[in-house]
Formats: sequence, structure tokens, C-alpha cells
Amino acid sequence: MHIDTSPGAVTRVPGYRAAGVACGLKQSGQLDLALVLSEHPAVAAGVFTTNAFRAAPVLYDEALLTRRPPPLVRAVVINAGNANACTGEAGLHDAEQMARITERALGLPRDTVLVMSTGVIGHRLPMDKVEQGIYAAAQSLSSSGGAAAARAMMTTDLVPKEAYVHVDTEDGRFSIGGMAKGSGMIHPALARPTSAEKLSHAHATMLCLIVSDARLSAPVLQDALDTAVALSFNRITVDGDTSTNDTVLLLASGQENVREITPGREAHRLFQIALNEVCRSLAKQIARDGEGATRLVEITVCGARSDAEAERAAKAIATSPLVKTAIFGADPNWGRILAAVGRSGAHVEPLHTDLWLGPIQLVAAGTPLDFDHSAARAVLQQPEVAIRVDLGLGAGAVTVWTCDLSYKYIEINAEYHT
Amino acid sequence: MHIDTSPGAVTRVPGYRAAGVACGLKQSGQLDLALVLSEHPAVAAGVFTTNAFRAAPVLYDEALLTRRPPPLVRAVVINAGNANACTGEAGLHDAEQMARITERALGLPRDTVLVMSTGVIGHRLPMDKVEQGIYAAAQSLSSSGGAAAARAMMTTDLVPKEAYVHVDTEDGRFSIGGMAKGSGMIHPALARPTSAEKLSHAHATMLCLIVSDARLSAPVLQDALDTAVALSFNRITVDGDTSTNDTVLLLASGQENVREITPGREAHRLFQIALNEVCRSLAKQIARDGEGATRLVEITVCGARSDAEAERAAKAIATSPLVKTAIFGADPNWGRILAAVGRSGAHVEPLHTDLWLGPIQLVAAGTPLDFDHSAARAVLQQPEVAIRVDLGLGAGAVTVWTCDLSYKYIEINAEYHT
Repeated sequence: MHIDTSPGAVTRVPGYRAAGVACGLKQSGQLDLALVLSEHPAVAAGVFTTNAFRAAPVLYDEALLTRRPPPLVRAVVINAGNANACTGEAGLHDAEQMARITERALGLPRDTVLVMSTGVIGHRLPMDKVEQGIYAAAQSLSSSGGAAAARAMMTTDLVPKEAYVHVDTEDGRFSIGGMAKGSGMIHPALARPTSAEKLSHAHATMLCLIVSDARLSAPVLQDALDTAVALSFNRITVDGDTSTNDTVLLLASGQENVREITPGREAHRLFQIALNEVCRSLAKQIARDGEGATRLVEITVCGARSDAEAERAAKAIATSPLVKTAIFGADPNWGRILAAVGRSGAHVEPLHTDLWLGPIQLVAAGTPLDFDHSAARAVLQQPEVAIRVDLGLGAGAVTVWTCDLSYKYIEINAEYHT
Repeated sequence: MHIDTSPGAVTRVPGYRAAGVACGLKQSGQLDLALVLSEHPAVAAGVFTTNAFRAAPVLYDEALLTRRPPPLVRAVVINAGNANACTGEAGLHDAEQMARITERALGLPRDTVLVMSTGVIGHRLPMDKVEQGIYAAAQSLSSSGGAAAARAMMTTDLVPKEAYVHVDTEDGRFSIGGMAKGSGMIHPALARPTSAEKLSHAHATMLCLIVSDARLSAPVLQDALDTAVALSFNRITVDGDTSTNDTVLLLASGQENVREITPGREAHRLFQIALNEVCRSLAKQIARDGEGATRLVEITVCGARSDAEAERAAKAIATSPLVKTAIFGADPNWGRILAAVGRSGAHVEPLHTDLWLGPIQLVAAGTPLDFDHSAARAVLQQPEVAIRVDLGLGAGAVTVWTCDLSYKYIEINAEYHT
């Protein structure tokens, strides 16, 4: 299964058009409003931040997706430069208006548009600019607009994140294409919506839109998304700070003439694998482009008493400033890694613990080995670094992704002013 | 109650002598071995890191203090420059030898010496240098040696941390003097020893020795230390990384002619207050001297449903890299503070939340106020910054201390090489 990360992923999926325009939300004048249209009414699924302070667009989408029966969706509108967060009841009204304006601009029925926002907080959306941007985007929708849309959702991202795959099955071909943004305030803890709330206050971070021409029912699509997100976005961290705007949306527009993908069929298994791979590719692209990152770090903890304990240990390593600065400095400081594992709450027997850096084993049965320091430093100087800890206690295992912590992270976050 | 933070705290307490010497454990040639002697056998209490990987000296002290009846202690030996961590069975033997050599050098009975180590990991202690240092320190013990001892335990610390207080009670006067070290890998999670283990692997960080001439039983002393630590060392964080060597030891040498401090007496209440203040002073000194720190940050969360929820929220703020970099940049970025609270797991009702920066209220009932940005920036440019969040839900409240996150933190930790 080949994941294509070249530009234009969402419009590579048949039946989708997209656009990215500049409407003045970013002071830089760069693209800041993305619009994606499905030619056919699409089944939709979503997962949203579990942060207690949730932004207006998050609350809007949650309310729409928890209706029974769930509405079919035709478009997603995304703005960058302003998160529509901590803007009170007025902000919730603005999020609704983004949907209403998009419906009007595209001639769609009510409640067929989902909304995402990212950017500065505490400021009302300049709705005149947003409206102008939505109409401009609606005018320029095209089957080659995916790349512009992916750029329009970026904030501190250095590069857009895209992933596309198509799969041929006994039931025919399906395609999945996704685009994501995110660089700082990255520690997603996403869950399916369970209830709608009235208002929130928020900050911007990781957004992802995935589209497919497959045909699935809403519950099956939501289950597939939950599974994929648990293995991808919920396993990355840049700075341990879970945002209040995190959102992943998934549309499936397959029509009557397409065979429905139902659990138990081979096509269902392949859809899940393909979705997992798209999500994992996008998640790793986010970790690699973490604020100030110079390395992508893949951390595997195995031999834990459970997967949950493995995840606690892996995330303790992934969020440790001492581990992340050591990686930035290319220092094979295994003591910091063991210390993070030791504070994680995972059950540990020191004399059962092994540790590898890439192919080099540094610790065996809790005892430091006499390893080649310059070889270990060379491993750490690669753009991708793998750390593996075997707790030697059970079958629990997990892999998470993060990045190193550099001077540039401080610069980005200390010199960014509200 | 006046806390004196000037040099020489431990030897300001009657009945204690101390020394700090250089024996070559630090490549810089600076003081690296501290010795503190109680003229009288002292009751001892201790709390130790809850990290699963615990260093040899931690295991040695835990084993001694959990004996029943607990032994009376005469001296504490502390080295910096080498943590005696991840050194296996041999390291445990070295920790024991540090105690044995100290007993020999001072003519003390067996099992009357406690040990602390801090510094680089994974290297055996050069026991010849340690032995030479212990004998040199034993020779130079004096009632003015407290300041040198406090300097000898430093690693990346820029300044020594000391605190002294004396209190006159109806039962007579008692003194408490303490010294601490710690700058990075600071997120203590300390608990009284419950069992001894065989071996560990570790890294160095916060150490503290407190001495008193008061007379208390071992259980009463341990209870007092537990209470004080919960309000002080367990409420600071520099980088969220709990060390494997964290240790706080408390000696009380009061003799037969001193009235025993027992629960219910006024002197007991005053002892607890004095010990709390000494520990809080030392803890705040550690946070203020956190690696790369330019500000001491005091974070209070009140109005929580419980103290435990208040602590979760306060520690989420205190460990947030985005909050800490914003403080370094003197940016009143209240959105990052609310986002940290929102991910903390504490129960939050957005519309009940208030937020203050020093005297300036930034958020009321979840709604951003139109505050004076330059005044807020001025608050953040002070050496001490106070953040207060009122969740508006209950009586739970806690105060924790941290520091900002600067370029210097990256430099210290990326350019330090094992």
C-alpha cells in the first residue's frame, strides 16, 4: 500500500474539489481559507479534543455530528490566522455563520457544512473578510485545488501535510486523501463526540480533514476513524500541550452504485489499513514539523505489562524536555530515557530493562553496556531517530512519535506575541 | 517567623559541624564533597523519589531508615559530580563504602551515616578520591562549615540554597537549618520509604539535608517531614522530569535535657510551621534557580472541586512549555494557561473560570477582559510572577512554583554531554 505524500491529496480522491485563498486573516497575506466540496452528500465522522476548553468550531461540529440521524455533509470550510476561540457566544454565532455563508455560496442545504479554525485566540473573526474569502474560494474550487487548501490551513507549519492512497479490492477501488496542519501545542487526545456543549474558550492547533469516495455507514466510518486516530494522532506529541481546537474530520461520499464497505468484508479490512496508514503518515508529518524540530523521533516501548503501561512509558519519554534536548544535542544520554520511564507510572523492574538507540544497544538487563559513543552520536544526527525500551515484563507494546527540543522552539514560542 | 537564607544554615543549628572539600569528582576542581556531623546521635527521617529507577545511595538510605528500631544517625556524607547511578551491584557496594569510610574517618559506630550523591550517571565512583575527600572533610569539620557544605553539593546550580530559622517556645528554643541543591530534572515526587530494594539505575537531581536541635521521636519527625515536603518540594517543577536520586533527609538531635516535641503541644505546632517554612524557602530557591530560569513563577489554582484537582491544574500550567516560553517572552498569553488547565483533567466549567496575572485580571467568567497589555507585560518582566486561576467550583486550592523556559535551558541540556 503506497502512501503518496505529494501535494493535492484531497482532490486526488474522485468527487472532491477544493480551493485555498487569501482573505486577509493572516497578516502575511498568505493563503488562509480552505474550502473542500464533495460533489455528493457524504457520510461524516469526527474526533475532537478532550480539552475542557473547546473552541466554537469544535462545539459547532460536535453538535452537528451528534444529531440523530447524522446529517450528510457536502463541504468543509477551514480558516487559519484566527482560532475563533475565547470569543464567547458571539464566537459560536460566527462559527455558525461560517457554515451558513458557505452553504449560501455553494447553494447547499442547511447543515451540510463543517467548520475548522486555527490561529490567534481571543479575537472575533473578521466576518466580512471570512465571507469574502468563502465566496472567492467557492468561485475557485477545482479538482486540482487540494494543494492550495492544504497550504491555507497552515499556521506555524513550515510545510503542508498531505497523504493519499488508493486500494483495489474485490468490491472495486476506493481512494482516501487527507491533509493536516499542526506544529505546536501538539499532544492530541481526541475522542468521538458524545454530547454538545454551549460555549468554549480555546487555542488553535492540529486540524485534519480526510476524504474518501468509499461508501460506509456513519457508525462504521466513525469506528474506523476512532481506530485509526488511536494509532496515529493520539500517539504524537510535540510539547505535551493538548490544544482546545484539535479536530479530525472524515468524509465518505460513496454513492449507491458503489458497494458498501461493511465489517467482515475484505474491503473493510483494507479500508481500515489504508485509513490507518494515511493517519499515521499525517501524524508523523506533524511530529517531524514540530516547532523547532530538527529530528523525527520514534519511541517504542515493548515488554510492558499492558499496552496502556507501554503508552505511559513511551509518552513520558516523548514529553521529557531532558530527553528531547539530549536528542537535539545528539547526546546518547540513556539515563534521561530510563529516568523518564521510571517516573511514568508504568511498572518497571530495573534489572529487566533493555534500551536501544537505533541498532545500538545501550542498556542490557538494567546494566549500561560499553557502547561506541561516536556511533551512537551518529545515530542521533540522522533526521529520524529510533529509541526502543524493552521492559521485559509482558506483551504490552506501543510506538509514539515526537521531535527534539531546540533553541528554535523557544524562539517561536517566546517571540510570538498575542 | 524569620527565615534566614544567608550562607551557613546547617551549622547555625547548635550541635552540628560541617565541611565542604574538593576531592576531584568535579572536573572543574570546585567543592564536591560535603560532610555534616551531629555531635549527638540524631533521630532521622527521610523521603525519597518515587521514580522506579532509584540510585544506590537512595536504596542505601531507605534500607537504613526502614530498620526497626530505626538507627540513630551521626553524619551525612554527600558527593557531587558523580551520581553513583546505573552502576549495578558495585554501585550499591560503593554507597555502603561511603558510609563505612565516613564512620571510620569520624570514629563512629556502624550504621550511623547516611549518603547522598548527585552528578553524572553510569560511572563508578572513584572511591580513592571519595575516601581522600571524606578524610579531608572530617579533618576540616567546623561550626562555620555550613556554607562550604552547601556549595559542595551543587551541580548545575548557580547559587547554593540555604534556610535557617529558630523559634522560642514555652518548652525552650529550637533551630532548624537546611541546605538543598537542584536546578534541572526537578519535579520531585517524594514519599517516605516503605521497603528496601536491591539495585537501581539513576540520574542526579534534588538533594536536601535539614538538621535541627529539637527532640522528636522518629515517627513524629517523619510525619512532620511528610507534611512539610507535601507543601514544598512536591510542589515545585522545573522541567517535569522526576529524578531518580531525589532525597530529603531530616535529623533531630535534641538530647535528654531538651523537652520532647510531641503532637498536641504548642511547640509541635510551631515546629511544623518552621519546618514548612524552611522547606518552602528551599523549594522556591530551587525553582528560582531552575536551569536557564529568568523568573520565579508562583501558580495558584483555587475554586477547584478538591485540592487534588487544583494541584493537577496548577501542575499542568507549571509544566506547560507553551506557558513557560510565553513567560520568558513576557507575553500575557492567557489562552495557553487556560489550555493547560483544560487538559489537566481537573473539572472545569469554562464560564466559571477567572484568571489573574499578578494584580491584573485577564479573564472573568471565561470571557477575556480588555486589559492593559503593557501593564501585563510589565508584570511578566518582574523576577517573580504570580498567576492565579479561580475555577469557581469549590474550595480546592494549591500553590506551586516553577520557572520560565529559556534558550539557556536548551543550551545547558543539549550541550551537556554524557
